[in-house]
Amino acid sequence: MTAIDLNADLGEGYDVYEWGSDDIILNYVSSANIACGFHAGDPHTMRKAVESCLKLGVAIGAHPGLPDRLGFGRREMSVTPEEAADFVLYQVGALQAYVKAAGGSLQHVKLHGALYHMAAKDERLANAIVKCISQLDPTLLLYGPHGSQLEVAAKVKGIRFISEGFADRVYLPDGSLMPRSQPDAVIVETENVVNQAISLASAGKFETLCFHGDTPKAREHAQQIVERMKKYGINIQPLVKV
Amino acid sequence: MTAIDLNADLGEGYDVYEWGSDDIILNYVSSANIACGFHAGDPHTMRKAVESCLKLGVAIGAHPGLPDRLGFGRREMSVTPEEAADFVLYQVGALQAYVKAAGGSLQHVKLHGALYHMAAKDERLANAIVKCISQLDPTLLLYGPHGSQLEVAAKVKGIRFISEGFADRVYLPDGSLMPRSQPDAVIVETENVVNQAISLASAGKFETLCFHGDTPKAREHAQQIVERMKKYGINIQPLVKV
Amino acid sequence: MTAIDLNADLGEGYDVYEWGSDDIILNYVSSANIACGFHAGDPHTMRKAVESCLKLGVAIGAHPGLPDRLGFGRREMSVTPEEAADFVLYQVGALQAYVKAAGGSLQHVKLHGALYHMAAKDERLANAIVKCISQLDPTLLLYGPHGSQLEVAAKVKGIRFISEGFADRVYLPDGSLMPRSQPDAVIVETENVVNQAISLASAGKFETLCFHGDTPKAREHAQQIVERMKKYGINIQPLVKV
Amino acid sequence: MTAIDLNADLGEGYDVYEWGSDDIILNYVSSANIACGFHAGDPHTMRKAVESCLKLGVAIGAHPGLPDRLGFGRREMSVTPEEAADFVLYQVGALQAYVKAAGGSLQHVKLHGALYHMAAKDERLANAIVKCISQLDPTLLLYGPHGSQLEVAAKVKGIRFISEGFADRVYLPDGSLMPRSQPDAVIVETENVVNQAISLASAGKFETLCFHGDTPKAREHAQQIVERMKKYGINIQPLVKV
Repeated sequence: MTAIDLNADLGEGYDVYEWGSDDIILNYVSSANIACGFHAGDPHTMRKAVESCLKLGVAIGAHPGLPDRLGFGRREMSVTPEEAADFVLYQVGALQAYVKAAGGSLQHVKLHGALYHMAAKDERLANAIVKCISQLDPTLLLYGPHGSQLEVAAKVKGIRFISEGFADRVYLPDGSLMPRSQPDAVIVETENVVNQAISLASAGKFETLCFHGDTPKAREHAQQIVERMKKYGINIQPLVKV
Repeated sequence: MTAIDLNADLGEGYDVYEWGSDDIILNYVSSANIACGFHAGDPHTMRKAVESCLKLGVAIGAHPGLPDRLGFGRREMSVTPEEAADFVLYQVGALQAYVKAAGGSLQHVKLHGALYHMAAKDERLANAIVKCISQLDPTLLLYGPHGSQLEVAAKVKGIRFISEGFADRVYLPDGSLMPRSQPDAVIVETENVVNQAISLASAGKFETLCFHGDTPKAREHAQQIVERMKKYGINIQPLVKV
Repeated sequence: MTAIDLNADLGEGYDVYEWGSDDIILNYVSSANIACGFHAGDPHTMRKAVESCLKLGVAIGAHPGLPDRLGFGRREMSVTPEEAADFVLYQVGALQAYVKAAGGSLQHVKLHGALYHMAAKDERLANAIVKCISQLDPTLLLYGPHGSQLEVAAKVKGIRFISEGFADRVYLPDGSLMPRSQPDAVIVETENVVNQAISLASAGKFETLCFHGDTPKAREHAQQIVERMKKYGINIQPLVKV
Repeated sequence: MTAIDLNADLGEGYDVYEWGSDDIILNYVSSANIACGFHAGDPHTMRKAVESCLKLGVAIGAHPGLPDRLGFGRREMSVTPEEAADFVLYQVGALQAYVKAAGGSLQHVKLHGALYHMAAKDERLANAIVKCISQLDPTLLLYGPHGSQLEVAAKVKGIRFISEGFADRVYLPDGSLMPRSQPDAVIVETENVVNQAISLASAGKFETLCFHGDTPKAREHAQQIVERMKKYGINIQPLVKV
């Protein structure tokens, strides 16, 4: 019997605004990436998301983004490696405070949106970010794309890298994701999402799968992924003991 | 020979903007309160301020404020105790990340501006803020006004409270500070600042003295305070080993 | 046959976040108060809201709030009259640019949340705000509570004041609104909302009625208010020709 | 006797933070570009800057930037043409409100930092921005680089374009500016700045010259430029009657 981690983004609302379906996510995933107040999230949503994860045994990750709330962290910005590292450290530290105060511990870091994609491709960005994470806490896991600069940097710095597959995003033939700016970048049909999830989980290349809680069929996707995984004898579980 | 801590606010610039005289502060104080990005400061100024403190042996404190950069955290806002605690935890955590990544440890928390004064007077605010600090790290010191609700709350939660006197602010007969909105709230003449510093240091009631680095004569104030303290056999030193 | 204006807040989302039911509002109201980017709204939502109003013949108002997006402009802040006026002018000007660029004209200003309530009670705030509006454009209407300091100030400055009743908020015996912080401050049942709307419209004291588009039964409320008004021969129409 | 406009950026502080030397600028330039609250500036600095310009007979321009206060608007962000136009309209409208309320009129628009350079090169950005300016007020002038996409777009939309030379920035052989990220991008020596100013003013290609008020020798630069222009019979004056 094999095992895989299932992750989703959590706490991406802002004040009165809700985003996605945090309740769905919390009931199906084994690890959550909590927004840290730059691209989304705020002190209250962060604290509540942390408390929910601890209550339900979901492993907690920090989900830092670019300082661009108006663009939901999806727009590229020309930041220096030093700036990017400073942004990441600030956000991871803020989230970590809620986790510590609630008696838990932070499992991983997963970059958000444009920062995720920029650091995957840019060696200097990846190095600076991985370095600051390892200085903060070398036992933190780093989620990221297979074969990316983040993976290279993590190996150099001795950070455990977790290769991530996307259940509901279209892969291009070269293994990269179709950019979100394209109309068909997100897989809509549950059957297709579930098939891709099983296929990625069986490939042996990925230790975690991501699905999105902010799509119309998120609940159905989550339920079907979990059910089919069970049927195939694939255990959904966090990467470290929660 | 007696001893006292001398503290000042640090890193209250923002991006290209400078504020106060960080170099002066760093050469004379034994502990610094670093702005955490809400009322002032940003990821880069925070990291740099932390590095400077560690280099010069200055004890590091977090200086969280209200989320009101446009008002420099000086305007009262009607926040709930829960909101205030969430704001504090976020900022302390963010600063702590830079301190940890740089190999140091955080010594204290000192609230900024309106939040400092609101929590000093409001029992529920004080309780919520002290509670979250003690949940994060019960060894953190809390700086605050003598006899305030912050002192009461700290004693209840087992947090070490550090009573603070202000060398360059006018005290009213009831022991409270003249509000900054009044024209003569800040003492300008060096001789008066130094005399008040010595008087407060000798009173036995205060473990730390604050002076401001953002006044025109800041350097002179600092030099004279340090010199006179020496003459009177009062040692300026951090509250815990740096 | 009598007439009344029916207004609601519009464009109170932010970037990816939606808020309330702008489509409902646009189909039933005669005037809309568009958020201006401080408490809610952003350049894109503002432009789109303006375009929708012009398309559907809904009169356009600016809905400026305090610079507190994290609190949705509902928290009181201790701002000076001069600061408040500067905030209002900035926001009204920004919205006016979209209206002018789209070929329309701005009908009114209605303050949002805490700023609305603060200026209603505080003579100096009210004076400063009304003064800057009259300097910008003395033909702008000002919506506000009956008998408020805003009404007094508007009369002095020669701004046409529009007394506003709330269809779905509970009135206290002294004619003031029950604060939103209280659990029963908002009327939930459609029948009660409609009855209050008719009663307010018949009182002769109000030239506009407000209802909220961000309640679960907003559509039902709107439909029933419009239908009952028709039955009673009360015409819902803007205060000036659109 | 020839004439030229001399412009500088104004009001680029933020709340308690000062920036550059607004008093110097105001005493030497014929037109000022006032920051509009995105990259720098805030409601209070904007109002005060407008009042100073009107008092001293300096022509007023809006200086809109990207929504990146933390980067002072100097970092490129991947915004769509529609987003860029919405940002510009918001900021120009906000500034225009202060100008109108103070009894003046807005003379021009000059983009700031990264937005200036992006729109100079990108036809679609330039078109969208020029279009929204012309929809707001077709009599507004647009300052920008000679031969840029902004110039092309302005001509198509019937907006008067004002070609701008930089007195204190190094030009590359192809006529473009050396990027600010390079160490020698800004000319430091007064003699060199003045010579370049005269040379640009005499070239016949530029209707306005820009110099920066945020350099150490800004006062000297301004004084010498003005003196030398006088000597050469070049009149420094606004482009339209103030």
